[in-house]
Amino acid sequence: MLEWLRQYRRAHLPGDISAGVVVAMMMIPQGMAYAMVAGLPPVAGLYASIIPPLLYALFGSSMTQSIGPMAITSLMTAAVLAPLAPAGSGLHMVLAAQLALLSGLVLLVCGLLRIGFLANFFSRPVMNGFTLGSSILIALGQGDALLGAAFPHVHVLSACLGGGTLVLLLLARRFLSRVLRTVGLPATAADVGARLAPMILVISATIASSAFDFAALGVQVTGPVPSGLPGLNLATSPAHWRVLAQPALLIGFMVFLISMSGAQTLALKRSEQLRSNYELIALGAANIGAALSGGFPVTGSLSRSAVNFAAGANTPLASVITAVLLALALVAPTGWLALLPLPVLAATIIVAVLGMLDLETLRTAWRYDRADALALLATAGGVLGLGVEAGVIVGLMLSMGAIIWRASRPHIAVLGRIAGTEHFRNINRYPGGTAPTLLLLRIDAGLFFANVEPVRQRIEEELARHPATRDLVLVLSAVNAIDTSALFGLIELNTMLKGRGIGLHLAEVKGPVMDRLKDSALLDALHGRVFLSTAMAWDALSAAH
Amino acid sequence: MLEWLRQYRRAHLPGDISAGVVVAMMMIPQGMAYAMVAGLPPVAGLYASIIPPLLYALFGSSMTQSIGPMAITSLMTAAVLAPLAPAGSGLHMVLAAQLALLSGLVLLVCGLLRIGFLANFFSRPVMNGFTLGSSILIALGQGDALLGAAFPHVHVLSACLGGGTLVLLLLARRFLSRVLRTVGLPATAADVGARLAPMILVISATIASSAFDFAALGVQVTGPVPSGLPGLNLATSPAHWRVLAQPALLIGFMVFLISMSGAQTLALKRSEQLRSNYELIALGAANIGAALSGGFPVTGSLSRSAVNFAAGANTPLASVITAVLLALALVAPTGWLALLPLPVLAATIIVAVLGMLDLETLRTAWRYDRADALALLATAGGVLGLGVEAGVIVGLMLSMGAIIWRASRPHIAVLGRIAGTEHFRNINRYPGGTAPTLLLLRIDAGLFFANVEPVRQRIEEELARHPATRDLVLVLSAVNAIDTSALFGLIELNTMLKGRGIGLHLAEVKGPVMDRLKDSALLDALHGRVFLSTAMAWDALSAAH
Repeated sequence: MLEWLRQYRRAHLPGDISAGVVVAMMMIPQGMAYAMVAGLPPVAGLYASIIPPLLYALFGSSMTQSIGPMAITSLMTAAVLAPLAPAGSGLHMVLAAQLALLSGLVLLVCGLLRIGFLANFFSRPVMNGFTLGSSILIALGQGDALLGAAFPHVHVLSACLGGGTLVLLLLARRFLSRVLRTVGLPATAADVGARLAPMILVISATIASSAFDFAALGVQVTGPVPSGLPGLNLATSPAHWRVLAQPALLIGFMVFLISMSGAQTLALKRSEQLRSNYELIALGAANIGAALSGGFPVTGSLSRSAVNFAAGANTPLASVITAVLLALALVAPTGWLALLPLPVLAATIIVAVLGMLDLETLRTAWRYDRADALALLATAGGVLGLGVEAGVIVGLMLSMGAIIWRASRPHIAVLGRIAGTEHFRNINRYPGGTAPTLLLLRIDAGLFFANVEPVRQRIEEELARHPATRDLVLVLSAVNAIDTSALFGLIELNTMLKGRGIGLHLAEVKGPVMDRLKDSALLDALHGRVFLSTAMAWDALSAAH
Repeated sequence: MLEWLRQYRRAHLPGDISAGVVVAMMMIPQGMAYAMVAGLPPVAGLYASIIPPLLYALFGSSMTQSIGPMAITSLMTAAVLAPLAPAGSGLHMVLAAQLALLSGLVLLVCGLLRIGFLANFFSRPVMNGFTLGSSILIALGQGDALLGAAFPHVHVLSACLGGGTLVLLLLARRFLSRVLRTVGLPATAADVGARLAPMILVISATIASSAFDFAALGVQVTGPVPSGLPGLNLATSPAHWRVLAQPALLIGFMVFLISMSGAQTLALKRSEQLRSNYELIALGAANIGAALSGGFPVTGSLSRSAVNFAAGANTPLASVITAVLLALALVAPTGWLALLPLPVLAATIIVAVLGMLDLETLRTAWRYDRADALALLATAGGVLGLGVEAGVIVGLMLSMGAIIWRASRPHIAVLGRIAGTEHFRNINRYPGGTAPTLLLLRIDAGLFFANVEPVRQRIEEELARHPATRDLVLVLSAVNAIDTSALFGLIELNTMLKGRGIGLHLAEVKGPVMDRLKDSALLDALHGRVFLSTAMAWDALSAAH
């Protein structure tokens, strides 16, 4: 906690200040835009960008992560709340904060339970498919706002504004950095400068809106943005705790996954260590902070954090500066923000989510591992066809299935003796001697519930392949643990083998495993012996019958 | 499919007939009782005991499994339908069948997708905790029926009937088998005979009910049971497909888990192989059959299958005989069934679920592995505190967490050279020589998304422990697969190491793994070499700097 502050060096300051300013300028339009995606008034997006990054700076382990509203969590918020309250209503705002509070509590509890290893749960293709589907869904969702009317209707001036902004932003993304470099800016500064295009266009559009009174011409504008800092928000809807519990679980899970995958990308570049349990606590605190200051679920966004990193952020002080600047912007007169044309904001959202599209993973997976590519497409299809919540569940089930499938296929080798030595190796890979009545099986994985039945089946197959077997030795040199289910499995295996007159022996049992087995019913009932080494088992049993 | 029929031998017949008769006599009260647990009219339990076992006999792979209504799936059915329709109503029956249909389709699809490995999903303690919680919930749920009035009210005659039956059944369970042995019956016959106590008590109670007109005395009785075979039931409630989808997923999952855990216990005794994908298809067909014949979700029950096995069942013909006998019972006059006192039926349910209580697993787990014992208690607590559906979800999450936790902790060894040989072993276990600038790491698990980040962290730790390292060799002798996520992870690792001037080399890459890597971006960008053996890597790199 605050270790970065204790180790703060003056050399960090210039980078932190420049990153703080750049991200603040990026965050004003982005925060308002993502509030719009979540079905909330724009100011909620600004509120959600002040307290959460401060709390993250207190607890988080990433130096460059930028916390605030994010496209996908906003989409999830909108999807959860749509059936519960009309977008923009007071209840909708209360429920959005309540959702952030519950998600924050979920994250906090997970952090205290130290289950940060869950960050490894989604495979990269599943995560990519989820992002792909969500991006398309968000872009489609902005269609009406971009055109100024419900499609197929079009409000011409709005559509021109939206379409024009879209084209300019796409051109800026493609060429602005190069142009800035040509006029003499260093490469990094040019890249960062290009990321401010949305802010510049939003300001220009707002000035134009004020000059030509766009609102009177039928263009939708953001409307009044209340001035002043967010107050303490303690409003909740008691009737909705239960309804929001499951969505909060899913949103908390995605907040963590999205934030960690972004943070890991940057941590790799900076060779720094993330601590997933601290991240859970920091993200939990950030979401609770968002809830208490009138915001909605927040997370770390890779695109925003990458700008933070590129603009020079060395420590979370950059985020603190961003938060202070946003607070100042809210204290200053906010009247001008009321005139911001919504089609322009919609265009910034569409370009932002198009930036999240990454077809490289699909292309690589398609060539490297077709099953991974199909998982990607299934998850994206789930999001697009069934909605973003169902998409998370599809991703969860695919990932879970893949993990269990792997866990249930442990490697097992039949061992043979390398002639003239005490070494025993896999007979499929080395020519080794075997004895007719002795079967040596080395199990190359810890024994636990997910593989105990497959292991038993494999033993049956090997016994069928070696029908003369009178003694089976399980070589446990690679078995680091045996759980209760596997203990029962071994006891049952022992009973079954005993019934067939086959001895069950154990060899090379590791110390900690033996300590547990010593007091168990398995060793009491074992129809065979425990050998220190495979060679000792061989000597005792190879000529026994 | 029907392999057992092709291989049928005359010697199988006596056992199959006796088991078929015994199970039919057991199933009449049991089917009616479990229908009561599910909130359905008693006849639904009989309907659900006719077509499902016939379909299971066609597709299933267990020789002794007995398919029909089961306490836990009935409890789950009741829990799902309680908020949707009043118990006993026509809609309730339609929805129960619809739930069976959906669960059946889930099972069928899982079978066709060949994901039978999911049977290994619940650890034994989690399964035991689920059964424990459900048993208590079912027993408590029968309290009112046992007492003849809503507790704390009591209908004295009903309570005497219920309590008396309870005591007699408990005595029968404890002593009847011993008594029958004393009077000369062989051990197995005595055990099986003792299992008919519920049937005998139900018949006696029905005769008494008829003789003394219990119904007129205020004792609740089953009421008229329609005579005749079940008709084809195609009624569904279109409004409820969506609502029932998620519960059907959970029920389908539990049907499979419950049936498999019972079938495995018996398969072990008979040394026969179960095929989990066939089981999925057979259970799917059985549930669809239950739906189409006016029943509700069915599964294999260990207690009933154990009776089937003990009474001599050799093949599914026993179940076919049971089904035919039940059909005959329905064709015969069923008027007498109408007078069966409900308190007696409630007592049979309570004794049946008490029989499912098994505290041995908890005791063993508590001594052997406290974490497993806590998982058991948490699952039982989830069922009791939050309901049976939430209990499944608690169990799912605990199991999932345990699997991911294990998957995310692969074993990694730092290798040293055994002096004077070409062998390389874990330096923590064997005294081995190392070179100052060369770090050899053997990864003892396939690389995939759940462990790629932990592996990267472990590599960082080892590099910090060996700061002079200029060449890192990953020995992949135990790596059977590298998925797309791990491919990306290795590419990023390579980039990072290159930035620090450290070479990344691979050694002992298995054939199938190499085939995939060959065309990937990893080998193109590799800042190092691929060695056939660890010894070759040692020779090339140990004196390189």
